[in-house]
Amino acid sequence: MTTPFDVVAVIGSLRRESLTRSLVRALTAMAPASLRIEVAEIAQLTLYNQDLEDMPPTAWRNFRERIRRADAVLFATPEYNRSIPGVLKNAIDVASRPYGANAWAGKPAAIVSVSPGAMGAFGANHHLRQALVFLDMPTLQQPELYIGGAEKLLDASGNVMNPSTRQLFTQFLQAFEAWIGRPVRAAFSPLV
Amino acid sequence: MTTPFDVVAVIGSLRRESLTRSLVRALTAMAPASLRIEVAEIAQLTLYNQDLEDMPPTAWRNFRERIRRADAVLFATPEYNRSIPGVLKNAIDVASRPYGANAWAGKPAAIVSVSPGAMGAFGANHHLRQALVFLDMPTLQQPELYIGGAEKLLDASGNVMNPSTRQLFTQFLQAFEAWIGRPVRAAFSPLV
Amino acid sequence: MTTPFDVVAVIGSLRRESLTRSLVRALTAMAPASLRIEVAEIAQLTLYNQDLEDMPPTAWRNFRERIRRADAVLFATPEYNRSIPGVLKNAIDVASRPYGANAWAGKPAAIVSVSPGAMGAFGANHHLRQALVFLDMPTLQQPELYIGGAEKLLDASGNVMNPSTRQLFTQFLQAFEAWIGRPVRAAFSPLV
Amino acid sequence: MTTPFDVVAVIGSLRRESLTRSLVRALTAMAPASLRIEVAEIAQLTLYNQDLEDMPPTAWRNFRERIRRADAVLFATPEYNRSIPGVLKNAIDVASRPYGANAWAGKPAAIVSVSPGAMGAFGANHHLRQALVFLDMPTLQQPELYIGGAEKLLDASGNVMNPSTRQLFTQFLQAFEAWIGRPVRAAFSPLV
Repeated sequence: MTTPFDVVAVIGSLRRESLTRSLVRALTAMAPASLRIEVAEIAQLTLYNQDLEDMPPTAWRNFRERIRRADAVLFATPEYNRSIPGVLKNAIDVASRPYGANAWAGKPAAIVSVSPGAMGAFGANHHLRQALVFLDMPTLQQPELYIGGAEKLLDASGNVMNPSTRQLFTQFLQAFEAWIGRPVRAAFSPLV
Repeated sequence: MTTPFDVVAVIGSLRRESLTRSLVRALTAMAPASLRIEVAEIAQLTLYNQDLEDMPPTAWRNFRERIRRADAVLFATPEYNRSIPGVLKNAIDVASRPYGANAWAGKPAAIVSVSPGAMGAFGANHHLRQALVFLDMPTLQQPELYIGGAEKLLDASGNVMNPSTRQLFTQFLQAFEAWIGRPVRAAFSPLV
Repeated sequence: MTTPFDVVAVIGSLRRESLTRSLVRALTAMAPASLRIEVAEIAQLTLYNQDLEDMPPTAWRNFRERIRRADAVLFATPEYNRSIPGVLKNAIDVASRPYGANAWAGKPAAIVSVSPGAMGAFGANHHLRQALVFLDMPTLQQPELYIGGAEKLLDASGNVMNPSTRQLFTQFLQAFEAWIGRPVRAAFSPLV
Repeated sequence: MTTPFDVVAVIGSLRRESLTRSLVRALTAMAPASLRIEVAEIAQLTLYNQDLEDMPPTAWRNFRERIRRADAVLFATPEYNRSIPGVLKNAIDVASRPYGANAWAGKPAAIVSVSPGAMGAFGANHHLRQALVFLDMPTLQQPELYIGGAEKLLDASGNVMNPSTRQLFTQFLQAFEAWIGRPVRAAFSPLV
């Protein structure tokens, strides 16, 4: 049996009862054996300040190291004020530095954006994509995963109930697996 | 003599030697008497987590109160990874909450984006604008202020040297003053 | 009785049975007496090419003149491929030129974006907003008008049926009227 | 010798003396033997209107067919009003339809954005990227190609003069070639 891909999930909400985290759990439960999805926590990351690079906080170093080890990254984000939460952007900033050591470079990525309302956090989804261009992360295009009305999607055990959403999640996971499996090109990055 | 407008400056970089902060100083020095620009610090704001709203950190409450008192807001931002820094987005998120008490609502805003390279932090500038739509902040359109090659603009005392940049700053400050001076409409906001 | 504001509506779809056009009709029917909304057609505008400026097509000149006469602009747009339709962007480009004669400059604007699906053409709405910054059009922030599930909103006569949508449209029209009524500042535009 | 990749270039400006077209010529001249770059013209494409699909204009059918045959697409765009030109968006819309027959689906893409000023058409570059997500085009991330001050880059024969730009172009072409050469996954597209 082959080793599964090590996929790090980064979650943009810190709430204990976060809908976004619930969706990541549901995706993890449905993932094929070839994808091992594990959450990397971001609550403990000090706000990014370049002046701290002389002696980086331990949490920064651990997070950077975790990203560097990963085969791929799954970003799961709510929308705060039509963009990604500051807490998620801070995690992205932390692991993109110090200058010349972008931990994200070359990692295949996929995005799921989540909202209680109908629009599925479109604004967060695409602001995140703009950052991933600079970070040199080849990003899955289709299927896009805008999850609106999120609290009605899961049953009491956190499983996806309706068949069309289950099918979409399955397609997303399969497409992500195929995307990761493509031979990784030599990363060219202005940050590396 | 009339009371000057109370303009809060929010700066997206925490570095001591921040170019963005230097530019805010230069703008402040050039501002007409009718604009009093004062920086509200954001380094001390805990990462936003809705679970903390039961007993909000003192720094959150003070920042929200400072924004609420202001007549207008000047955002000054570098670009991190083709978007605004997490630290700036966190400050925006903090003062947009708790739900129903958006401190930014109705405040006239202007943006200056700053980069060492040529592109003037375009990506940060416009991601910020998208958030200001939701926050219901009437935002100055022209002149847009993309400040590229920022470190060469200021002399050793932090003054703007070349005449064309001085003129652009003067036009920006005048346009912002006129923008603030328009009668403030009753804010309609999904957050208020 | 005072003269109503002359509001030009620009519609991003050319289909005869366009949902977006139906929504503009519904908004027009609900508009207060102070707003006279009239559609300016864009189907006949030749694709923009600067080389034609020596002898601009008549349709270009008429459209530019119509925009120049207007007090304000209502943009109504579907989403094509996560952005505004080419046909709408072409109309915007045409009236922004020739260099130095931007017909849009200083006109207050509002946006309604329309989709058959749930997301309300978010991508089109905000791409359009980015263009309006450059064009120096003060743009209404709230209420944002993302109209999803559009074909179910209108009855056979084209009237808005459900009360919450009627209320939202009323709030939008009132906010737009107040927005137009603010004293128009002297436009500063890189294009003028 | 193996067959070179058939790369279609789509150029967002119709001017005879277009800088963007000159840059495409320069890139074509520098391309390795494995990339055959050929321009597909878009000036003749009627503005998109779904009502015409019953009997599509010949120019639409030819353009769609040309895209469908291609191995990959190079988009070259100026910036009009902080976004892509209407003429380019129209071409994208035309080949994305009729519903269920998106000609762009699965084609690897790369972008070069071009401006006379310093900012390299950042706004056009990223608006285009947002459309390519929906169109399911795997898009090269790095090196990003923002070409500012474009008219000073080429000599009288249209060759790139300065060594650092030549090196950047070489890196871009090599990265694009490697990107196209990755096994093309089965496209999943909401449009196909």
